[in-house]
Amino acid sequence: MSKDICTEYLEGLVRDAHALAAEDPELWGKPADYIPELAHIDPAQLAISVALADGRVLSAGDYKTGFSIQSISKVFTLSIALGRIGDSLWNRVAREPSGNPFDSILKLEQEKGKPRNPFINAGAIVTTDALLSGHAPKEALSEIIQFVRAAAEDDDIHINARVAQSEKTTGYRNLALAHYLRSYDNLVNEPDYTLGVYYHQCAIEMTTVQLAKAGRYLASLPDAPKLIAPAKVRSLNALMMTCGQYDGSGEFAFRVGLPSKSGVGGGLLIIAPRRGSIAIWSPGLNEKGNSKMGTYIAERMSRELDWGVF
Amino acid sequence: MSKDICTEYLEGLVRDAHALAAEDPELWGKPADYIPELAHIDPAQLAISVALADGRVLSAGDYKTGFSIQSISKVFTLSIALGRIGDSLWNRVAREPSGNPFDSILKLEQEKGKPRNPFINAGAIVTTDALLSGHAPKEALSEIIQFVRAAAEDDDIHINARVAQSEKTTGYRNLALAHYLRSYDNLVNEPDYTLGVYYHQCAIEMTTVQLAKAGRYLASLPDAPKLIAPAKVRSLNALMMTCGQYDGSGEFAFRVGLPSKSGVGGGLLIIAPRRGSIAIWSPGLNEKGNSKMGTYIAERMSRELDWGVF
Amino acid sequence: MSKDICTEYLEGLVRDAHALAAEDPELWGKPADYIPELAHIDPAQLAISVALADGRVLSAGDYKTGFSIQSISKVFTLSIALGRIGDSLWNRVAREPSGNPFDSILKLEQEKGKPRNPFINAGAIVTTDALLSGHAPKEALSEIIQFVRAAAEDDDIHINARVAQSEKTTGYRNLALAHYLRSYDNLVNEPDYTLGVYYHQCAIEMTTVQLAKAGRYLASLPDAPKLIAPAKVRSLNALMMTCGQYDGSGEFAFRVGLPSKSGVGGGLLIIAPRRGSIAIWSPGLNEKGNSKMGTYIAERMSRELDWGVF
Amino acid sequence: MSKDICTEYLEGLVRDAHALAAEDPELWGKPADYIPELAHIDPAQLAISVALADGRVLSAGDYKTGFSIQSISKVFTLSIALGRIGDSLWNRVAREPSGNPFDSILKLEQEKGKPRNPFINAGAIVTTDALLSGHAPKEALSEIIQFVRAAAEDDDIHINARVAQSEKTTGYRNLALAHYLRSYDNLVNEPDYTLGVYYHQCAIEMTTVQLAKAGRYLASLPDAPKLIAPAKVRSLNALMMTCGQYDGSGEFAFRVGLPSKSGVGGGLLIIAPRRGSIAIWSPGLNEKGNSKMGTYIAERMSRELDWGVF
Repeated sequence: MSKDICTEYLEGLVRDAHALAAEDPELWGKPADYIPELAHIDPAQLAISVALADGRVLSAGDYKTGFSIQSISKVFTLSIALGRIGDSLWNRVAREPSGNPFDSILKLEQEKGKPRNPFINAGAIVTTDALLSGHAPKEALSEIIQFVRAAAEDDDIHINARVAQSEKTTGYRNLALAHYLRSYDNLVNEPDYTLGVYYHQCAIEMTTVQLAKAGRYLASLPDAPKLIAPAKVRSLNALMMTCGQYDGSGEFAFRVGLPSKSGVGGGLLIIAPRRGSIAIWSPGLNEKGNSKMGTYIAERMSRELDWGVF
Repeated sequence: MSKDICTEYLEGLVRDAHALAAEDPELWGKPADYIPELAHIDPAQLAISVALADGRVLSAGDYKTGFSIQSISKVFTLSIALGRIGDSLWNRVAREPSGNPFDSILKLEQEKGKPRNPFINAGAIVTTDALLSGHAPKEALSEIIQFVRAAAEDDDIHINARVAQSEKTTGYRNLALAHYLRSYDNLVNEPDYTLGVYYHQCAIEMTTVQLAKAGRYLASLPDAPKLIAPAKVRSLNALMMTCGQYDGSGEFAFRVGLPSKSGVGGGLLIIAPRRGSIAIWSPGLNEKGNSKMGTYIAERMSRELDWGVF
Repeated sequence: MSKDICTEYLEGLVRDAHALAAEDPELWGKPADYIPELAHIDPAQLAISVALADGRVLSAGDYKTGFSIQSISKVFTLSIALGRIGDSLWNRVAREPSGNPFDSILKLEQEKGKPRNPFINAGAIVTTDALLSGHAPKEALSEIIQFVRAAAEDDDIHINARVAQSEKTTGYRNLALAHYLRSYDNLVNEPDYTLGVYYHQCAIEMTTVQLAKAGRYLASLPDAPKLIAPAKVRSLNALMMTCGQYDGSGEFAFRVGLPSKSGVGGGLLIIAPRRGSIAIWSPGLNEKGNSKMGTYIAERMSRELDWGVF
Repeated sequence: MSKDICTEYLEGLVRDAHALAAEDPELWGKPADYIPELAHIDPAQLAISVALADGRVLSAGDYKTGFSIQSISKVFTLSIALGRIGDSLWNRVAREPSGNPFDSILKLEQEKGKPRNPFINAGAIVTTDALLSGHAPKEALSEIIQFVRAAAEDDDIHINARVAQSEKTTGYRNLALAHYLRSYDNLVNEPDYTLGVYYHQCAIEMTTVQLAKAGRYLASLPDAPKLIAPAKVRSLNALMMTCGQYDGSGEFAFRVGLPSKSGVGGGLLIIAPRRGSIAIWSPGLNEKGNSKMGTYIAERMSRELDWGVF
């Protein structure tokens, strides 16, 4: 029989996680080291928030601590791009799992500059580039941050400029992707412009409370702001299911059974359609680059709450 | 507003399909040509059957014609293997989309003989091999056919020996995969044994009525025979969502929003959890090797019935 | 019996080429179209020059027309780099044929930022980067042009600034390679600096007379200026044999049997050790990106003169 | 100044090798372990033989011990195939370095069943298959062994049946290649037939004396039996230069400057055109699968004798 969700349940999950990791500290994983600003974070942190269909938002653990949402931002920019540009975006990005790490350039050569999906770096750069068209970088960024604030119904969401700068100075791989895309005419703006917006969107800081609330429109919760059309919400969920966790997407779908998006900052946004929007944060990563403890918690929650879509 | 499902609705879909294809015969696609026995089938055929939660089975079109289920059989052998062997199967096969065509050997070299998932050929061969262990090929085949008959509650399901023979004589790519797997110690039985069972399971012939009924256990319908544990049913659906249509899985998930498995014979098994088990057959294929008209019908049904899981 | 080389022989080759191509204009190939300044060149041009061991330089055809040496410059920068930096260069670049097109990024990902050899673009960029270290771009360029002039004993060799600019504005693929190398710490200087020098070295213009003379040190001809040690000359020839024609190197070695380096401007430098230094120019390319008529002439000369090293 | 070759020189090389390896036994490398019969050989063995233009054959070390020539046999079968079938063989095999390990199947998928060159396993299997056409396996094998005996002018050359059997029972990778080739219609005979001949040709046992003599026709030595046309000898040497050492061919050309062919049994055949045919044997391999001590000796000999072709 499935459990009911309540604050005590979430607090129990956090308590269990700390107890388990006290025995085996490796369960916390290791924070990403390629973005200097993120490398020094204490991995022994865990926050869980759930926005429910009845309007409640339950939380436990370090839910007051802001973290860098990183690639989770790709869901928001894709939502804006689909709303503004519509299906013509799919002329520039495909919708298939990549079968390779998030920053791989292999498939891009084989498939002549059309990224496999909007959630690997190459595809997210194209999406941001599409969003940027005809706008100054500042306007585009402002549109993104306004979208996230509207989704979360919370204006206290900001970009961490130090993190954005930190990515910029070490983002050679992304510059390579951007120039490579350009060589196939799949980048409209100057790489520096597009990547500038891209790094800033990744550097948005949110708490799990804010992220869970921001995900309500994807879960089609009754009190969610109406941001994009229902058909597009469904498609976005499908993409999150097949491509949301890079080359660990199949495994996550197998274990958790819910659409999701991970970020290298250790955040996870998990959508239980019509039931809840779940945000988990724990900064240590597993070998696929996704939150290690977060994935464990997500799997346990899906099983115990019986929230899987299948 | 979503439509109600009834026989007239399905008959309308079939009628519309024929009308559309009368204008543009290319909509029927092209039957697979690499299995001689399948190459000569008239592409202008379409059958739809739906097994519903209330026990009804609705059908339209060529639903009395048997067709070769081909790769759809992989769902059934995986179900048996998970029931019998359990999670140790996953030591031999991974659970990630492959990002390559169904018969590709590329990833197998890069990932040292561990196929990406049980639905590409290499992974299905390993699954059949695992199933075979300790049994004679005849027993294993008998177990598979009994499982399918039990799932469909219909004993009139048989293997087309000519089709099995047809695959055998031209299955050089599969022999290459089998020997390659063996070179990594990931094939236990003689390639001829394992492939013999594999070709025969692929050559099972069913009507859409039988296939829709056989899929009920995957849709967790009330009247479905209890064949495997509910947790395994959910995992199977997740795999069908991320990997069920080869390198077209992401696109199918995006458009249809339901787990499915395709076969090169033009069959599609689509699972709407707790709502229905849908079988569609139309023998012409699209460029990804999946039924062309079948995919169009699946997309339309999912949208019009509002049956997507997201 | 092998023919003797003389001006009449070369003139005969040019005459035959024009006669053949009069019948079949496709034999001229197609000039590279990705560098705008080179795209508009008349393909029906052919120049041959040979510097001989006895000091003579024989020529025929359009040998007074300067052309862009492009990738042939990679032999000269590699010569300078080996002289100045020595074998430590090989920590940054390997010495194996790539098995891929000249601008491929595939192997670079698989081999973690170490280019396969110094003649594909990635490897040449690393070589130029190594050359640049501690120098201003202008100094490095000046060193390259001085080296080429010294090798040719001709000060009338210059860089075509329009061509350099033309490559710069469209060189997105090279920018991608440079940033990608940097992400593996295999680029020391700013990509713009290194590529600035790289584009200018590629834009050196020479006649076949100048190029044949410049190649004398590689052929160990008696009157060649002593520019690098004999052991390094031998190694350079080996690299030219195995990697000098991108993914057509094996075929060229098979047909011609001599070390060579091709450029996308249609130039070919072919070394017959101790016999002669051959420069051929014809701007139309074959499908591997090497001079089409030039390759045909090279094969015929090697066979008729019996100059192959084997 | 280059040294003169004589028995004392070769004996000095052998002595130095043993002295060096007494200090550092890792210099002997590690015998191939994938062919059981070869895995148990003592690696501390070294034999050198050189057949000279003046008819002498000099030897030192373990030159009386027979060893398995393995892939060196590919040069002999290619010689026969070119003589018998001629250039039409090149419709089935290309002539480019592969950029991948000897048993890789990657390129074969990308290049639709046409192996990169006749010296990687896939290409050698095609060559043997071409040789076999219209013959019984026994006749083809007999032709191969007669060719080798004629080349060496020595009838005491035999196939080690135990080694052939040993390869057969573990040769799953080769079976995979054979079936894969067949799926592209690039294998005419039954895989078992072609591979049977292939394994037996690889299991030919020779001493370095016999191998050096057998290589004389490739070095165009005056007293060599006339086995194939001079133009084909030159082409074969070119192929040995660009592809003779698998993915270590570029490095070997760079260091040694001579065409060669290696075998996994630790043998090396090195051709110094018009000067000598060198056979070296030392059974331990380096990380590319070529004789470790043999490569070191080859490099030293080429440098000290000044025999490089460049």
